[in-house]
Amino acid sequence: MPPFDVPFDLPEGDPFGPHNLPYGVFSPSGSADRTVGVRLGDHVLDAGAAAAALGSPYVSLLARPSLGPLLAAGRTAWSDVRRALTAWVTVPAHQEAIAGLFHPLSSVDLHLPFEVADYVDFYASENHARNVGQIFRPDAADSLTPNWKHLPIGYHGRSGTVVVSGTDVVRPSGQRKAVSDAAPVFGPSVRLDIEAEVGFVVGVPSELGRPVGLGDFREHVFGLCLLNDWSARDIQAWEYVPLGPFLGKSFATSVSAWITPLDALEEARVAPPERTHELLPYLDDSASDVERGGYDLRISVAINGHVVSEPPFSTMYWTAAQQLAHMTVNGASLRTGDLYGSGTVSGPSAAERGSLLELTWNGRDALELPDGKRTFLEDGDVVTLSAWAPGPDGVRVGLGDVVGRVVSGDV
Amino acid sequence: MPPFDVPFDLPEGDPFGPHNLPYGVFSPSGSADRTVGVRLGDHVLDAGAAAAALGSPYVSLLARPSLGPLLAAGRTAWSDVRRALTAWVTVPAHQEAIAGLFHPLSSVDLHLPFEVADYVDFYASENHARNVGQIFRPDAADSLTPNWKHLPIGYHGRSGTVVVSGTDVVRPSGQRKAVSDAAPVFGPSVRLDIEAEVGFVVGVPSELGRPVGLGDFREHVFGLCLLNDWSARDIQAWEYVPLGPFLGKSFATSVSAWITPLDALEEARVAPPERTHELLPYLDDSASDVERGGYDLRISVAINGHVVSEPPFSTMYWTAAQQLAHMTVNGASLRTGDLYGSGTVSGPSAAERGSLLELTWNGRDALELPDGKRTFLEDGDVVTLSAWAPGPDGVRVGLGDVVGRVVSGDV
Repeated sequence: MPPFDVPFDLPEGDPFGPHNLPYGVFSPSGSADRTVGVRLGDHVLDAGAAAAALGSPYVSLLARPSLGPLLAAGRTAWSDVRRALTAWVTVPAHQEAIAGLFHPLSSVDLHLPFEVADYVDFYASENHARNVGQIFRPDAADSLTPNWKHLPIGYHGRSGTVVVSGTDVVRPSGQRKAVSDAAPVFGPSVRLDIEAEVGFVVGVPSELGRPVGLGDFREHVFGLCLLNDWSARDIQAWEYVPLGPFLGKSFATSVSAWITPLDALEEARVAPPERTHELLPYLDDSASDVERGGYDLRISVAINGHVVSEPPFSTMYWTAAQQLAHMTVNGASLRTGDLYGSGTVSGPSAAERGSLLELTWNGRDALELPDGKRTFLEDGDVVTLSAWAPGPDGVRVGLGDVVGRVVSGDV
Repeated sequence: MPPFDVPFDLPEGDPFGPHNLPYGVFSPSGSADRTVGVRLGDHVLDAGAAAAALGSPYVSLLARPSLGPLLAAGRTAWSDVRRALTAWVTVPAHQEAIAGLFHPLSSVDLHLPFEVADYVDFYASENHARNVGQIFRPDAADSLTPNWKHLPIGYHGRSGTVVVSGTDVVRPSGQRKAVSDAAPVFGPSVRLDIEAEVGFVVGVPSELGRPVGLGDFREHVFGLCLLNDWSARDIQAWEYVPLGPFLGKSFATSVSAWITPLDALEEARVAPPERTHELLPYLDDSASDVERGGYDLRISVAINGHVVSEPPFSTMYWTAAQQLAHMTVNGASLRTGDLYGSGTVSGPSAAERGSLLELTWNGRDALELPDGKRTFLEDGDVVTLSAWAPGPDGVRVGLGDVVGRVVSGDV
């Protein structure tokens, strides 16, 4: 990596160094204007202004209020723009032109970086699916449903309630009915949970009626981010038969303000777990060109600053490439801005579970936090997802945090 | 109704007379430009051009390539624009200015009239839900799931594959597994079905965290249209446990090119069926201001021109107002362009069922059509949904047809 030459302190090995360069959308302090920014350390570079200052043709992709145009531009443009940005922040000759275009993160507002088209959520962690099966169907012969090892189970969520990290989450109200209740009751959820996930962002659309193959994953998917799929377990339990989760999920889904391009995660690519069942050809990733379809992302889940879990993304049974192939195998088209979540990330050990449902075994085993016991979330709780991945030369690639505070609905 | 004064033949009592005036988006012959049109008989009025010709301020809402701005403008604007349009097509003094702005429907291309934000599909016909329950759970004590009478069951669908009437529907491929199969097999769906529904179009957004009450239905919902929720029953059956329908539905959802404003359907408002279970307050429509929350829409389903069913929308157990209240009671926000489907409309009699699943009792009883027997759809089949509602002075209000032809995926 060339020597840095940015006008602020950037420690060597910073997880947001020039090897990372995630994209977001920000407003400078005191401005309502939104524009694309690139994170470097604890600063954000006004990428469109930098492009203009340096006479770059990428001003048309970067001096925009959304990542949409960049997402739609496709893989060649993604690589070219990334190469240009890397040069801008590392080649000394550029310093004078862009030195004034960095803003401290503390001085900017970060926005949802793109308009979410369709939002799909998967269920791709075998550990998570087995935990859920054991909790809700303890007498079943197999904790997985019969289809689980044959296809990546997923469903559509509400794209209009995807919110950027930092947005408060209002505790949802709804119907719930315990087995012992004669009729459903209404009120604020008493079993509000999180799901630690990774979200994948589609850039290049596809044509209706034309499936996207496993090998085309990187042509369509621009990058990824952390995602918290907030879940009201009591609402979900009463509503979800037979058509799946609805109001138990649709009140909020939080994503990071920073989208990490896949190009920043080359060193994090790993083989997925060994497949225990033969897969149909459209999902078969045993061929060499897609063999490293997993990503080694080390996630951390904290409540009020106290880490309660460290889910390892490398353990996911189904990869993002398989999910994309499955999502389109029926001919469903992709749009720029489609977002799909991996499903809750849970590792094999108890300290690697990505939901309170699993961490407390459906409320049976409370967590002991410095500020008291928790089964599910209390008003005022702040949940933070963070993650890093192995990068070049042993440096970490940081993912943008996802932070959300639970607030009462009685406002 | 004042005398018509339009420059073409418009029979008295035409279901698309000046009492109707549904909105769409069209391109005139030979043009790629899209603009808002209003249907009158078998013609479409270039509404933006008419507004400009008459010096109307509504040119800003009508000379647009999408209904979006009009949808977002709100109920007062909806009523004002409708009043203006009614005058333009009925007051003789306007004839000279707008006579040249009507296009025969046969000469224009009709487009999806708005960008679909979130798409939700409900399951609100008791007859349909009981038929499905009896088909798939013949031994169950109750053909309805325990939650059915307490909340309008729904789920999110794929908004990116909502297509306008006239779009071919490619037969989807996917996994299916009969009970007798050892493993799932892959191929084109062999049980492709329709679902005759009504879609409701949200105009005015709502704030995240703030439920929309039953009484605010007409402030948010602009109008309705017919909707065909194409369904691959074999794909759906294998995938849907535990998270609901996904690829069995997401390949296509067809909607009419014409959105009928609620204001055109005042005479069609009817009381919904008697509620057999006490409802929680947010769903309780027994109060007088919402007592006529149903709509009397007479739907017709035809395959290759042969009518196979006439589902009556007035029989729906859950109303669109209840669906809106439920969809937002957890604080989920609405956006301009949200679309929600009623769920399959099925009446109590066998000739009123809105899906082939029910009409053929899951393939057991083939339909006898002039061109042969049908259990599920064959390639080349053209499905047409049409409907009318009672209007003023005994005149019918026509809804725009939804037409779709099934084509092979092997293209």
